[in-house]
Amino acid sequence: MAKTVPVREAILSANDQIAVLNRTKFDEAGVFGVNLMASPGAGKTSLISATVEALKGQMRIAYIDGDIATTIDADRIAALGIPAVQINTGGQCHLDAVMVQSALPQISYTDLDLLIIENVGNLVCPTSFRLGIHKNVLIASIPEGDDKPYKYPAMYQGVDAILLNKMDVISAFDFKMDYFKSGVEILNPGLSFFPVSCKTGEGMDRWVDWVKTEVSAYKKIGGGEYDLR
Amino acid sequence: MAKTVPVREAILSANDQIAVLNRTKFDEAGVFGVNLMASPGAGKTSLISATVEALKGQMRIAYIDGDIATTIDADRIAALGIPAVQINTGGQCHLDAVMVQSALPQISYTDLDLLIIENVGNLVCPTSFRLGIHKNVLIASIPEGDDKPYKYPAMYQGVDAILLNKMDVISAFDFKMDYFKSGVEILNPGLSFFPVSCKTGEGMDRWVDWVKTEVSAYKKIGGGEYDLR
Repeated sequence: MAKTVPVREAILSANDQIAVLNRTKFDEAGVFGVNLMASPGAGKTSLISATVEALKGQMRIAYIDGDIATTIDADRIAALGIPAVQINTGGQCHLDAVMVQSALPQISYTDLDLLIIENVGNLVCPTSFRLGIHKNVLIASIPEGDDKPYKYPAMYQGVDAILLNKMDVISAFDFKMDYFKSGVEILNPGLSFFPVSCKTGEGMDRWVDWVKTEVSAYKKIGGGEYDLR
Repeated sequence: MAKTVPVREAILSANDQIAVLNRTKFDEAGVFGVNLMASPGAGKTSLISATVEALKGQMRIAYIDGDIATTIDADRIAALGIPAVQINTGGQCHLDAVMVQSALPQISYTDLDLLIIENVGNLVCPTSFRLGIHKNVLIASIPEGDDKPYKYPAMYQGVDAILLNKMDVISAFDFKMDYFKSGVEILNPGLSFFPVSCKTGEGMDRWVDWVKTEVSAYKKIGGGEYDLR
């Protein structure tokens, strides 16, 4: 009788196998990787710009940007003087592990402390593709509305921190903070939560401290303790 | 020698074949179908709510809502007293023709003038799946930013009208209207464009007139003149 290979969930998908390879590279080099996800226009690039400005003297940072078209975002971050690579996804709605793998040779990843990856603007598809990094972060924003945790539960469940951007315009919108936070709490209890305004700088110090603390902790404990993200 | 079937682009995909079946049903019944797409939180449901309020005495309307989770949107529209069906996409990032096909028996589609379909909040994936309707409409919004036509060209190219919502808060954002409109014009010259605020009602009359004119024109000329959307 022929031998059979049982296909179980425990067998990693092709994408996850490449994610593991990426992760091994990061951990050998001591690079802490963050995958930033959001709706279109929530403020991913503005947040990254402010974060890089705050941290670039203190640690070595590089940036990978996933976009369907244009290099608007990558050009903006490259102007800050850090290695920045644009992955044109060719119409794909998410980054995957192979795209990240293909970008690594261009950013001298072995000389980094922090790699920030900006995913495609999309609250659905990016949750299904691990990249090999250490933490997933979501940027929500006030104008999107307070019901988004309820409508996009997979995204809100799969992240390690949430920023709520555009706090400077909260009075112009009917945004019930308690309703939003309850939705987050049900899906992801105890999650790190940062109300910010990338425009005014409000709340950015707490977020920047979180990044610094995370990078320091990673340098101490190494990659073994982190889920594959 | 065996006969071969050349696989060409002209051969319709499975999805498009079902879209044709949907379209045939709509055209036999005289139902004008609109597919509404947008980022999460741009205001799809608010727009539909206001549109239904304005038109429900004048024509027979039904609503199909594609959402990943929850019936928040469908419940809100059903409360207006029109047939409303929720398609739970089971995590899928877009509606497809089969999902619409499966919803039709629940809305007595043969007794309608206008069917409004609210797609999943996503600027990428819905563009790749025809549903069988007559017009695609996009709702952009001020807080998303003025660069979105450049970043999501397939979406902006594939629509027959664009609304720009949340005009009431434009002064709170650095939104360059000329830059936005230039991007739209390059991709989709002469497109119908409606700056609106679903909150204040600003600009809604022009949009509602557009819908009325489109439905009237369709009733006169029939479905043969319309591209498959």
